[in-house]
Amino acid sequence: MNSIKWSVFPLLLMMAGMVSAQESGMEKTKLRHVVLFKFKDSSSDKDVKMVEEAFKSLPEQISEIKSFEWGTNNSPEGLNQGLTHCFFLTFDSEDGRDAYLIHPDHKKFGKMLGPHLDKVTVVDYWVKE
Amino acid sequence: MNSIKWSVFPLLLMMAGMVSAQESGMEKTKLRHVVLFKFKDSSSDKDVKMVEEAFKSLPEQISEIKSFEWGTNNSPEGLNQGLTHCFFLTFDSEDGRDAYLIHPDHKKFGKMLGPHLDKVTVVDYWVKE
Repeated sequence: MNSIKWSVFPLLLMMAGMVSAQESGMEKTKLRHVVLFKFKDSSSDKDVKMVEEAFKSLPEQISEIKSFEWGTNNSPEGLNQGLTHCFFLTFDSEDGRDAYLIHPDHKKFGKMLGPHLDKVTVVDYWVKE
Repeated sequence: MNSIKWSVFPLLLMMAGMVSAQESGMEKTKLRHVVLFKFKDSSSDKDVKMVEEAFKSLPEQISEIKSFEWGTNNSPEGLNQGLTHCFFLTFDSEDGRDAYLIHPDHKKFGKMLGPHLDKVTVVDYWVKE
């Protein structure tokens, strides 16, 4: 029985490590990139959808993006200043973030976005405890 | 050996479940609450620190807050619209978010924040894939 127990031990340890790395990765050592958009009144639902899809495809094109999520505002507070979309990206270094900013696929996305963008707010921050 | 293997199996399954729940929790089924502040020029570093510490203590006081992180802007893009602080909270339901908004400790925080707040932007979103 002891030999079996020890053979499983490294696996358990590895899995525990995965959980711990994931927790610390999400909470402490990440550079967040928060992007808020307000689209122009003249932009159609189809235009907005096109921009959403293009943004969503960036993580496949730019390896520096370590995680990506997005959604549309549903705050009841009325403090969104007209901004309706949030895209929330994570990098693991400022070099990675900077490489993203000048990446050809990001530039291409910016050109597509431009005609539809009414307002934008961008804040980046290192996660603090 | 077989009996030992089976006795460990539920534990492995449980740990795999933890990893999976955590992943889906962070990526798909969470209501994010993004809060951006610009402080008044008249507010001292001490005032700003006081607000930061008060916000940081809210998760201990309000159980509906499922995760919390924050940081200060370091984006080189110059699109932060003067906003310098991001607080990023997660709820697991709109009821939880709404309970937070009217919670006495949140209201108390708001009263302390008020005199120092120049600009605020708040966007909430359900995480989409």
